Amino acid sequence: MDLGISDRVRPLIEQVRQMVEEEIAPLDIEFHHEVGGHPSGDRFQHTPRQLEILETLKTKAKERGLWNFWLTDSERGFGLSTVEYAYLAEEMGKVGIAAEVFNCNAPDTGNMEVLERYGSQVHKERWLKPLLEGTIRSAYLMSEPDVASSDATNIALSAARDGDDWILNGEKWWATGAGDPRCRLYIVMASTDPSAHKHSRHSMFLVPSDSDGIEVLRPMQVFGADDAPHGHMHIRFTDVRVPAEDLVLGEGQGFEVAQGRLGPGRIHHCMRAIGQAEMALELLCKRAMNRQAFGRKLTDLGANYDIIADARMEIEMARLLCLKAAWMMDTRGTRAAQPWISKIKVVAPLMALKIVDEAMQVHGAAGISQDFPLAAMWTHLRTLRFADGPDAVHRRQVARTELRKYTNDRI
Amino acid sequence: MDLGISDRVRPLIEQVRQMVEEEIAPLDIEFHHEVGGHPSGDRFQHTPRQLEILETLKTKAKERGLWNFWLTDSERGFGLSTVEYAYLAEEMGKVGIAAEVFNCNAPDTGNMEVLERYGSQVHKERWLKPLLEGTIRSAYLMSEPDVASSDATNIALSAARDGDDWILNGEKWWATGAGDPRCRLYIVMASTDPSAHKHSRHSMFLVPSDSDGIEVLRPMQVFGADDAPHGHMHIRFTDVRVPAEDLVLGEGQGFEVAQGRLGPGRIHHCMRAIGQAEMALELLCKRAMNRQAFGRKLTDLGANYDIIADARMEIEMARLLCLKAAWMMDTRGTRAAQPWISKIKVVAPLMALKIVDEAMQVHGAAGISQDFPLAAMWTHLRTLRFADGPDAVHRRQVARTELRKYTNDRI
Amino acid sequence: MDLGISDRVRPLIEQVRQMVEEEIAPLDIEFHHEVGGHPSGDRFQHTPRQLEILETLKTKAKERGLWNFWLTDSERGFGLSTVEYAYLAEEMGKVGIAAEVFNCNAPDTGNMEVLERYGSQVHKERWLKPLLEGTIRSAYLMSEPDVASSDATNIALSAARDGDDWILNGEKWWATGAGDPRCRLYIVMASTDPSAHKHSRHSMFLVPSDSDGIEVLRPMQVFGADDAPHGHMHIRFTDVRVPAEDLVLGEGQGFEVAQGRLGPGRIHHCMRAIGQAEMALELLCKRAMNRQAFGRKLTDLGANYDIIADARMEIEMARLLCLKAAWMMDTRGTRAAQPWISKIKVVAPLMALKIVDEAMQVHGAAGISQDFPLAAMWTHLRTLRFADGPDAVHRRQVARTELRKYTNDRI
Amino acid sequence: MDLGISDRVRPLIEQVRQMVEEEIAPLDIEFHHEVGGHPSGDRFQHTPRQLEILETLKTKAKERGLWNFWLTDSERGFGLSTVEYAYLAEEMGKVGIAAEVFNCNAPDTGNMEVLERYGSQVHKERWLKPLLEGTIRSAYLMSEPDVASSDATNIALSAARDGDDWILNGEKWWATGAGDPRCRLYIVMASTDPSAHKHSRHSMFLVPSDSDGIEVLRPMQVFGADDAPHGHMHIRFTDVRVPAEDLVLGEGQGFEVAQGRLGPGRIHHCMRAIGQAEMALELLCKRAMNRQAFGRKLTDLGANYDIIADARMEIEMARLLCLKAAWMMDTRGTRAAQPWISKIKVVAPLMALKIVDEAMQVHGAAGISQDFPLAAMWTHLRTLRFADGPDAVHRRQVARTELRKYTNDRI
Repeated sequence: MDLGISDRVRPLIEQVRQMVEEEIAPLDIEFHHEVGGHPSGDRFQHTPRQLEILETLKTKAKERGLWNFWLTDSERGFGLSTVEYAYLAEEMGKVGIAAEVFNCNAPDTGNMEVLERYGSQVHKERWLKPLLEGTIRSAYLMSEPDVASSDATNIALSAARDGDDWILNGEKWWATGAGDPRCRLYIVMASTDPSAHKHSRHSMFLVPSDSDGIEVLRPMQVFGADDAPHGHMHIRFTDVRVPAEDLVLGEGQGFEVAQGRLGPGRIHHCMRAIGQAEMALELLCKRAMNRQAFGRKLTDLGANYDIIADARMEIEMARLLCLKAAWMMDTRGTRAAQPWISKIKVVAPLMALKIVDEAMQVHGAAGISQDFPLAAMWTHLRTLRFADGPDAVHRRQVARTELRKYTNDRI
Repeated sequence: MDLGISDRVRPLIEQVRQMVEEEIAPLDIEFHHEVGGHPSGDRFQHTPRQLEILETLKTKAKERGLWNFWLTDSERGFGLSTVEYAYLAEEMGKVGIAAEVFNCNAPDTGNMEVLERYGSQVHKERWLKPLLEGTIRSAYLMSEPDVASSDATNIALSAARDGDDWILNGEKWWATGAGDPRCRLYIVMASTDPSAHKHSRHSMFLVPSDSDGIEVLRPMQVFGADDAPHGHMHIRFTDVRVPAEDLVLGEGQGFEVAQGRLGPGRIHHCMRAIGQAEMALELLCKRAMNRQAFGRKLTDLGANYDIIADARMEIEMARLLCLKAAWMMDTRGTRAAQPWISKIKVVAPLMALKIVDEAMQVHGAAGISQDFPLAAMWTHLRTLRFADGPDAVHRRQVARTELRKYTNDRI
Repeated sequence: MDLGISDRVRPLIEQVRQMVEEEIAPLDIEFHHEVGGHPSGDRFQHTPRQLEILETLKTKAKERGLWNFWLTDSERGFGLSTVEYAYLAEEMGKVGIAAEVFNCNAPDTGNMEVLERYGSQVHKERWLKPLLEGTIRSAYLMSEPDVASSDATNIALSAARDGDDWILNGEKWWATGAGDPRCRLYIVMASTDPSAHKHSRHSMFLVPSDSDGIEVLRPMQVFGADDAPHGHMHIRFTDVRVPAEDLVLGEGQGFEVAQGRLGPGRIHHCMRAIGQAEMALELLCKRAMNRQAFGRKLTDLGANYDIIADARMEIEMARLLCLKAAWMMDTRGTRAAQPWISKIKVVAPLMALKIVDEAMQVHGAAGISQDFPLAAMWTHLRTLRFADGPDAVHRRQVARTELRKYTNDRI
Repeated sequence: MDLGISDRVRPLIEQVRQMVEEEIAPLDIEFHHEVGGHPSGDRFQHTPRQLEILETLKTKAKERGLWNFWLTDSERGFGLSTVEYAYLAEEMGKVGIAAEVFNCNAPDTGNMEVLERYGSQVHKERWLKPLLEGTIRSAYLMSEPDVASSDATNIALSAARDGDDWILNGEKWWATGAGDPRCRLYIVMASTDPSAHKHSRHSMFLVPSDSDGIEVLRPMQVFGADDAPHGHMHIRFTDVRVPAEDLVLGEGQGFEVAQGRLGPGRIHHCMRAIGQAEMALELLCKRAMNRQAFGRKLTDLGANYDIIADARMEIEMARLLCLKAAWMMDTRGTRAAQPWISKIKVVAPLMALKIVDEAMQVHGAAGISQDFPLAAMWTHLRTLRFADGPDAVHRRQVARTELRKYTNDRI
């Protein structure tokens, strides 16, 4: 069970870390400063400078071969294992736009997984190719406002067969990335047969974002912020017509697609969360060493030593757990790795939230302001406790796996 | 030690609760919807409808005699004890604009305390009167960007004597309420003699917000939101001239004024935080009873029973502690009550944050969105862990008080 | 809602505190030193010195009128309210044998409540009188080894009618105090009709401890200690014959008796737990002020300031909650106070355990040894998380009460 | 960084697990039942049956080659890496006497490390040989009653030179294993030059337990239990004469010896703690599946699903952290691994204590009694939060290592 840094990935980590720190981090600040600066007043339009920043960095990354690291199981990818990728994703997690610079950002990577694994040749040509090139973006439309979407069998947006097409009606929300004008593709989970067995009711559709009948109702706010220009959109489908060949894999197999997508997607979020925790701890230490109150450095006040020590211990444990989950995916497959992914999916955001919270506290009010990345990290990490399944669902999964060990002992 | 609801306050609680629930709550939603709707695009200008909402509600409250409950130690106030006021403040805490409707909102109440206790007759006439009427607003300028303001001896904005005037230079930030165009008065802590004993270095000034040399640099963001039109402003003072008679109480007595202000100010925040915790628990319970996943109500899943029970226990304990701190203020004075205020200042925000966080989690992503008040509660409560002194400073205060009991045993 | 110290109880608190500190505490150490010193080698026999200690102290307490404070609702008692008693019980909780010295110890007080409320004149004469005099002791036999006794409907020891008698068969364990040779009375919950409604299946019996067919199987150990000579006994009933008149209140009313007994019993435990928390915090502070490591006092190391502050805050909150529960009992009766008793029953032991644990940690290994009372406090407090209902059952109670508020909203 | 189970250790794990479960576990119960059964009444004498149990099992283990796994860096040992040993130690941790059966128990392994690394040929022949054979036992005398021994520079037992001998005077306590009549060797840290630099003040001595002037004052109790016949002894040294050649390594090098000893010793405790956590979780799950209350299995009540899931996650993280610390020792040496050992030294006991506590709670009062191993696990684990350095000292170590990263940034 080798969880270490391989010789292959070691130089990549170094290159990625350096590019993140030296080239991306300063421009990330400028990028976020530009938000809302589009002449139209539309916060979901990039300013020219924002596009320039993104394209310049992406071009550099692509030229250096630092691109599409994430596709671990495919000819098209970099050929890395999930364990190897974990170390890279952690570095990318440290700065807001970094993952996109390397074409490794959610939800596009998960969506590309869907297309790579379950898409037809036509799908791959039309959608996967430009996504791998980073020329378009995509969104994944799962969650709905009127049902507890944590239990995916509740998903209710309907798709009704009409000749060679399906007609989609309903609402989706929290479509992350759908605010981006470059977002061209929606992958949509819809109910095709509510009377079927609960795991066969749904199908997955590929829907162009400019289809007739699609209406973006509003950006969802995350603690009052709209996360523009990326955004999390609330979208209405009114008689949206989708050709039958754009149903992925097969009718009633939406669940299977969703499960296949979620394994890697979840763990990538966790890897980046660990990077954020590292960044927060670094900020915490530096601040505590450089501020004085009551005649002493902050490090020497309150419980800061214990806070720092606990943070270091919790980061290391979460990283190791994440690496083990990655190793399980690499060696046993996504299905067998599922309880491990559930574990890290609960652990990583909670751990990172705690450390970011402590770092904010040490920064005083500055810590929750636009002057430090901590508040944005926190709100993002907080969404991860719902995204791809809330904690309670993953804990339930882990507990059931545990109890199953003893089922036979009871007889 | 009567911590109960007195006969005098009982009908007031009922009136306030009813007005908050039935009249203010629906308009609060509309008020927040209107944010950013001013034709100028300036988010810190009220829309006509916002002003109408505020004025209509304030007029009603005033007419019903539900006004200025907070002034517990004065002829001008309602004549309530702090314990009695606690029950009212809790109700006002449940809805965003409610405290202002009853003219009981921060930072104006604290500022009025300053004017009432330490102001000259001229100050009272010029500033206290319109504040008591609710026709103007005020801000309290303490925190500074370049020093650890949690230790107020660090405060560095300088005031230099020049004839009959003082000249102020420096920066303040997190001036809550200074975004509001109705905000006319800044109460400013400045360093008048850096060489004096650390508790005699500072003085408190009354400065009109439209004084020459005052520049509002930017709104500080709280987790990405600007809290418009109220706002938390970053302000620069460049050679701002203040007549000597607008130095409050006396030169070098800024600390004394700040301490006198903070006692009641801190506890009022706590009272409202308890109201928010109650509201969050109510939302949590209702959501958990009305949503289904995996074939069961959310109440029956995960640890929700324990979460609800713990929330109830923690609210009750925090409320009792808050009432005891209030009772100490009423019977022993602010100074003797100080360790009790520190206790509840640590306890109430942490308790409320935890319950709001659990409530958000039960709501799924909706919980952190604009569709529920939970996210705004959370970010507001999170600021309370810094405002008026960070947790660490209050814990330090409590620990020192505790250890002092045994100092004599050591000889 | 007066939760303060009344004029009536103030001098009593002073007398009790002084007697506990000055007279009982030193002898308590000697008492525990004597354990196991009986010439027979029987740890459950008092040594002559142990009896002398107990009798001397009890005589003093009785002479001073510091006796039977607990009986709040009766002609026989001291006439105190539960709130008043809380302050006394807290003092008694600080030292192991103190409660018995004032005839206020568990389980005797609860058992006397049963006799006072539900006993016949004969019962009162035979059992209540000597218990009130402190000349005999008693035990309460509820818990059973083979069922989850937290759900009392599971209780299975059977009582079968046989003419004018009942015949009891089965096992009880954790009969606290039954190790004491002075223990003469067992109050026993037995199943008299397993086919009845679950709350009418059981009846309560008064059984002399020397009845034929009663066999003390063994002392239960609490973390390896046997708590001699008090003890927690495992007892077998084999055809134990009890006259019908020693069934208390009525057949099938065992539940009612148990409920009536538990309200006060639970809250008395909590009051004493708060006293233990106070004692632990005092020990913690004194140790931390008087030991040095790495060139500094322990107070200045680690998170000790925060630990002390949190301890102080948590004690105050628990005490207030306990007083409120007591006030509810005094003003609304035991039934209405039930959710409040459940709250404090969860809160007080957890709070005290945490503080004792921190105190042990500050003491180093000495803290868990016989040289300090902390370890014995901890093990005793840990049992309180089961005794009179485990935390989970009380949390469940609190949550159900909370949710009931909204039941009508759901329609 | 291979943290997995090697091919070499896999069959050993299987053999050890099987022997622990099938052969040692049942006899462990009998062993503990026998405690106190020696005809003399001396609890620190083994009964004949206890000796028979130990010798029979040890002989079997030795015959099967399951012996002395722990000596990772020596010709004498089994040749395992620390990572490999971790998996074995975890299995041994599950049952009380198992580690001794395989000659892998504390404090003997640490003491053998001292002899192996720093002892002379004479020391090895006289003491190491019989210890490796398991024919004698040893104790490590570090902690003292009158000083904060967590800071080892406080150690005060004095050794004064007298010709070719040293004369030792002072007291030691918590000499674990010194109760065992087979304990022949004490390794004693003494102050040989209080005026030297704080890390050169002490020297380490080998002292036969039957030396003149040694007096065992009493067994220290751990939560009221004496842990007989192993025991934790309080020992007085009065003019105990030790030949100069029994000073280990060199005068003033006591610290170096202590540090060398502690690395492996600490991590072995942690490995076994993880085994105890696994055992506790297994007991918890089985109990929760097999008991009913309120008409449902305990698994379906309260927060048990979350408790089980959290336990599983925390065990996995602690195990991975322990393996990483072991890997650091194997590849970078004890010194470089120090911060990693500190991390797991804090994490493992806290994690295991929490799970054992939850398991006790699910068992009801049975959980803290002699009928389950949980209470003994808990008290043992609680001592680990002091043994070999309290949590606070290790957290301090970790925090200082963390802050050192940024020291240069501050200039």
